[in-house]
Amino acid sequence: MKLNIALLAGDGIGPEVIDQAVKVCDAVATKFNHEITWKTALTGAAAIDAVGEPYPDETHEICLNADAVLFGAIGHPKYDNDPSAKVRPEQGLLKMRKKLGLFANVRPTFTFPSLIDNSPLKRERIEGTDLVFLRELTGGIYFGEKGRRDGGETAFDNCVYTRAEVQRLAKKGFELAMTRTKKLCCVDKANVLETSRLWRETVQAMEKEYPEVEVSYEFVDAVAMRLVQWPNSYDVLITENLFGDILTDEASVISGSMGLMPSASVGSENQLFEPIHGSYPQATGLDIANPLATILSAAMMFDMAFGLKEEAEAIKNVVNKSLAEGVVTEDLAEKNKAYKTSEVGNWLVENL
Amino acid sequence: MKLNIALLAGDGIGPEVIDQAVKVCDAVATKFNHEITWKTALTGAAAIDAVGEPYPDETHEICLNADAVLFGAIGHPKYDNDPSAKVRPEQGLLKMRKKLGLFANVRPTFTFPSLIDNSPLKRERIEGTDLVFLRELTGGIYFGEKGRRDGGETAFDNCVYTRAEVQRLAKKGFELAMTRTKKLCCVDKANVLETSRLWRETVQAMEKEYPEVEVSYEFVDAVAMRLVQWPNSYDVLITENLFGDILTDEASVISGSMGLMPSASVGSENQLFEPIHGSYPQATGLDIANPLATILSAAMMFDMAFGLKEEAEAIKNVVNKSLAEGVVTEDLAEKNKAYKTSEVGNWLVENL
Ligand SMILES: CC(C)[C@H](C(=O)O)[C@@H](O)C(=O)O
Ligand SMILES: CC(C)[C@H](C(=O)O)[C@@H](O)C(=O)O
Repeated sequence: MKLNIALLAGDGIGPEVIDQAVKVCDAVATKFNHEITWKTALTGAAAIDAVGEPYPDETHEICLNADAVLFGAIGHPKYDNDPSAKVRPEQGLLKMRKKLGLFANVRPTFTFPSLIDNSPLKRERIEGTDLVFLRELTGGIYFGEKGRRDGGETAFDNCVYTRAEVQRLAKKGFELAMTRTKKLCCVDKANVLETSRLWRETVQAMEKEYPEVEVSYEFVDAVAMRLVQWPNSYDVLITENLFGDILTDEASVISGSMGLMPSASVGSENQLFEPIHGSYPQATGLDIANPLATILSAAMMFDMAFGLKEEAEAIKNVVNKSLAEGVVTEDLAEKNKAYKTSEVGNWLVENL
Repeated sequence: MKLNIALLAGDGIGPEVIDQAVKVCDAVATKFNHEITWKTALTGAAAIDAVGEPYPDETHEICLNADAVLFGAIGHPKYDNDPSAKVRPEQGLLKMRKKLGLFANVRPTFTFPSLIDNSPLKRERIEGTDLVFLRELTGGIYFGEKGRRDGGETAFDNCVYTRAEVQRLAKKGFELAMTRTKKLCCVDKANVLETSRLWRETVQAMEKEYPEVEVSYEFVDAVAMRLVQWPNSYDVLITENLFGDILTDEASVISGSMGLMPSASVGSENQLFEPIHGSYPQATGLDIANPLATILSAAMMFDMAFGLKEEAEAIKNVVNKSLAEGVVTEDLAEKNKAYKTSEVGNWLVENL
């Protein structure tokens, strides 16, 4: 198969972890007889520095013409303490999501038996956790009208959802639930928000199309609690953009394996794969960042974007092997036994 | 001193736990020579059943004329699966907050050494946690314009904040930080929301009035993570209404002592004290609910509303004694050693 992949390394440790993912993908391609063409493009602070724009048109063209996008991380400390800066890396991210129509962010949280003791939660609370959030990614308060009134003294952000936006996200949720344990939780704040009431009534109306799926409705504050108490009681969760931002990050740390969590952002045309972790600026260039989340994102890409399940399994298996044999970066290694980012990448290639 | 207290027991276990708090307050009053007048009033589902309104005008009058309000819990399952019901208990809560001007919700999360093993978090993560959230309670997306367009196909909720609203909440935050370890964290989403940028710039401008307070700014998603990872790294946190709803609930379960967490909602005129837990309908009338959160809320009332610190300490001490001696309800008791709600109340009165 010919695979045409856009490669957006981004900022901070992005380029280093992306490099390892490229090595692993190339090795998989050789092994399974595929031909990958990588098209690199600029995003984030790197793109602002180069062309003054965090998501340049040229990058958008490259993404549109690719079969999938593999993404590193964006964000740079020089923008962090100046939220009112005119151009910010985050704007690139939001623009990219919107322009590529990536309306569903798929974020699994699962545990690796060998890493379970890294979790801040007690073993009996976290064991067996295997859940997936589907976060709506191109609507809600992120994209509603926002601004100031009264000479800057009053600020507003508008949260807007249409029934069609809820339906297309919920459809993915029901479909995903059907491939798993058939449990779906709709997370909202329907006791206060009108948009949440629209979410709830829309999902309720879809229940009859998926009679096998058991649907529950929970308020966002209750989910924020239960995720810490009994994360293993959830399977598939669907939610709106802002709730998803908060809850998926909360979920990502409970497993103790944040450095390993992949994600996908999908729409009806395009698909993007990226690790959950950020650009980790302090570690830039040190060859110490954990590349496994990016490599597991590449595995998701083989599976979801190309339908190549065997290839995806091959990557997951070799990652499991590296964990079992302790070929890991310093965040996961025992004292004095840490491998470098690039060494982990090389080991995976050799052991594929 | 003459103390005039409005008593809103509410729904579910509300009346049972409130009864114990009343006993304890009366005993404290006798001991320290105060005279309490209790004025009971209806709220929540109980008020809807009686007069068709979850926060009747009569209740509002009683609250306005009291020195403080002691509140149980509201909510009833018959409203839970019908979020579009015309009258809901929650509306009473929101109306009460708004009409009494209770703009700051004060929510401490702390640990009791004897209960630390109840926490879902590992001991080393939770030990030493002692933080307070100040949640804005009468603004933001809860109270902005909301509704439908396009024949019901589009829903919207508007989030609005004025600089003055942020200032009065932040002022309480800085003042509270000054009485503690002088660390203040402003939680926002300033990389996306205009209201958050107003929050951040307003707090930044107030920093110079409190040069001793060390202020940090963190995004809400990052806080949702750090609360699980290192809750003991926080002291005072200030945030807007919806973020506060989610994060204070998340924080409340990490200590393992949710059944013990009190809270206060304060404004410039009125003050209300209530346990953090809900109405726990399954336990209604069984005399098994934990009354300690309500009793500790009464301790907060003596301290914050009446300036009676010794009285507040007396309540906290006797609660600590009951915990140390295992005089606790089934949620905290060893097998077959549970006390009834009313027995715990009686024991506290005897041991004051
Ligand atoms: C960087 C920021 C705008 C972004 C978001 O809030 O969506 C990030 O937190 C995420 O979850 O991808
Ligand atoms: C019941 C609900 C409206 C309320 C809120 O969201 O404020 C509750 O969750 C709380 O935190 O007091």
